[in-house]
Amino acid sequence: MFFKIPTLVYLEDECLKKHGRLMENYGRKALIVTGRSSARNGSLADVTAQLDDCGISYQIYDQTKENPPVEQVMELQSLYRDYAPDFLIGLGGGSAIDLAKAAAVMLYYPDETADFLYKPVEITRNLPVVAIPTTCGTGSEVTGASVITRHEIGNKQSITSRVYPVLALLDGKYIADCPQTIIANTSIDALGHLVESYINTTASEYSDMIVREGLRVWSRCKETLKGEHRTAEDCNNLMLSANYGGMAIAHCGTSLPHGASYTVTYNTGMPHGKAVGYFLYGYLKYADESRVKDILELTQFDSLEQFRDFIVAVCQIERLDEELLEKCATALAVNKSKLRFCPYDTSEETVRKVVFAL
Amino acid sequence: MFFKIPTLVYLEDECLKKHGRLMENYGRKALIVTGRSSARNGSLADVTAQLDDCGISYQIYDQTKENPPVEQVMELQSLYRDYAPDFLIGLGGGSAIDLAKAAAVMLYYPDETADFLYKPVEITRNLPVVAIPTTCGTGSEVTGASVITRHEIGNKQSITSRVYPVLALLDGKYIADCPQTIIANTSIDALGHLVESYINTTASEYSDMIVREGLRVWSRCKETLKGEHRTAEDCNNLMLSANYGGMAIAHCGTSLPHGASYTVTYNTGMPHGKAVGYFLYGYLKYADESRVKDILELTQFDSLEQFRDFIVAVCQIERLDEELLEKCATALAVNKSKLRFCPYDTSEETVRKVVFAL
Repeated sequence: MFFKIPTLVYLEDECLKKHGRLMENYGRKALIVTGRSSARNGSLADVTAQLDDCGISYQIYDQTKENPPVEQVMELQSLYRDYAPDFLIGLGGGSAIDLAKAAAVMLYYPDETADFLYKPVEITRNLPVVAIPTTCGTGSEVTGASVITRHEIGNKQSITSRVYPVLALLDGKYIADCPQTIIANTSIDALGHLVESYINTTASEYSDMIVREGLRVWSRCKETLKGEHRTAEDCNNLMLSANYGGMAIAHCGTSLPHGASYTVTYNTGMPHGKAVGYFLYGYLKYADESRVKDILELTQFDSLEQFRDFIVAVCQIERLDEELLEKCATALAVNKSKLRFCPYDTSEETVRKVVFAL
Repeated sequence: MFFKIPTLVYLEDECLKKHGRLMENYGRKALIVTGRSSARNGSLADVTAQLDDCGISYQIYDQTKENPPVEQVMELQSLYRDYAPDFLIGLGGGSAIDLAKAAAVMLYYPDETADFLYKPVEITRNLPVVAIPTTCGTGSEVTGASVITRHEIGNKQSITSRVYPVLALLDGKYIADCPQTIIANTSIDALGHLVESYINTTASEYSDMIVREGLRVWSRCKETLKGEHRTAEDCNNLMLSANYGGMAIAHCGTSLPHGASYTVTYNTGMPHGKAVGYFLYGYLKYADESRVKDILELTQFDSLEQFRDFIVAVCQIERLDEELLEKCATALAVNKSKLRFCPYDTSEETVRKVVFAL
């Protein structure tokens, strides 16, 4: 078994003010990759204030799309090839951080074309990435994955290179005013990372430690996921549980729920976390009983049905139509990169049962 | 709070055979720093077989002293300056790994003199270090510390630079035939790392997670610490609990027991772990009750006295003489680098009580 979290993580109130100076270690020219909401939650202003303080010059790309496609990665390569940043700052949810990671590869190899992203590679390099999450789901700030939409295959898929951020700066205040639906959906994504890492062929004592602690912290957030009220402590707990979720998948990888969710999101635009949440009950329904019992105990649910109902309620899930679920099951049944992490039977029949469980 | 474990860790049966090839990432010329017992437990043969397989040339320094002094670090700089290794392999207990770390600094700066080791430095560099522990205490394979004996100040002290190994390869088989006294003493050192990180001004949710898991794993080893019998599973548990101990002090640093132990070891040559164990009871006696309760629960002791008696028995501890304890108390009362991690009163009076508790 292995332990690998190469990212230096800080989670603190006023984290950027306290530790933003560390960005000096990565160069004098930054590219900030973000979406439009980072300007609203104050995080972009905090980042630029820090960069100004350090005398680091920067450019801002704030057009990140949800589930960014390969074309947007290539747009970044083309826009900033001449600027030639020393490092990138991924500021936002999973979309912004993953886009920054993929762009950090393509700007390191400014002459490579898009197919480089999905080519089997032994070792690639990339510009350093600093990750600053403003949602509580992705965990991308501590993983090597960068999930990008490939219209070519009609799905989302992680690029081949592993891009671990060098530094992650987490501050609960960036989600204090986040819309409740985003909090709910992203936090269920985090729950998915924890659950899929615990029910996983590659689960180890190291990853189990992380998952158990992550589930404990996540369970503290259940009340806030149901309502509008969110204290500063809630925000930090939401951030922390998502961070543990990232550490967990950095060791284990995601399995059936994430695999099925990509098809749903690609075809309907359903938010990622909600789509993951749709399949968590089905994934647990066929899993090892004692592992499921651990999960229910740590998250303080009395039964798997209560666990299911909670997710359905907070993500406002409605049953998907048969045709789409058929598409999910068909794609998932041949998706080896997700099937290999499922520790139980992955025959087409069982996969179908998981997908149709809700 | 922060999370920082930059080392890639593998813990597995036949770990070197499975992952030794990763050493190719660090260059073509290695320097192995070890003691004489590594030849006997099979670890040195495993390392050289791997290096031969990878076509990496190497030299072997097998004269590591217990608690190596600054002079030995400088001897390594002088012996291998011309050989100019690309990376070092610290193979052995804490002494060999810490010596390799300090030498990795001095060989990176081959023209610097001994005072460089303890000079205040902002950022230093070092040759990459691969750590392969053959005891179950140090945790040095995942920390930045390198504790070296300074005759100049009549004590042991970590060098100023932080040297995190790039890779740690752990295999329980290297302690399978280790003498019981070494197993007992080093495992009590690991317990000290966990306990001192839990009762610590800098304890965080991240470090607490590591400590709790470390104590759980350590408690599985209690039976084997009392006797001669040691299964392969015991060996891996001993290794794992020591590894968690290292991860814990990488976040928190050690406090009063380690501080006092250095004086004992410097003056009497008492093994490090036994000397640490001497002061653990005293450290807990004055600590926050609920934290102590956690420790006792996780290690499955009914009382602090039972915890004390266990350590006294497995390390065969006898009361130290008054004069030496006075020396410990006097040195510790002004040792700011250890006092600052103690979360309770560190007046001279309390420090004396801790030192004299047994």
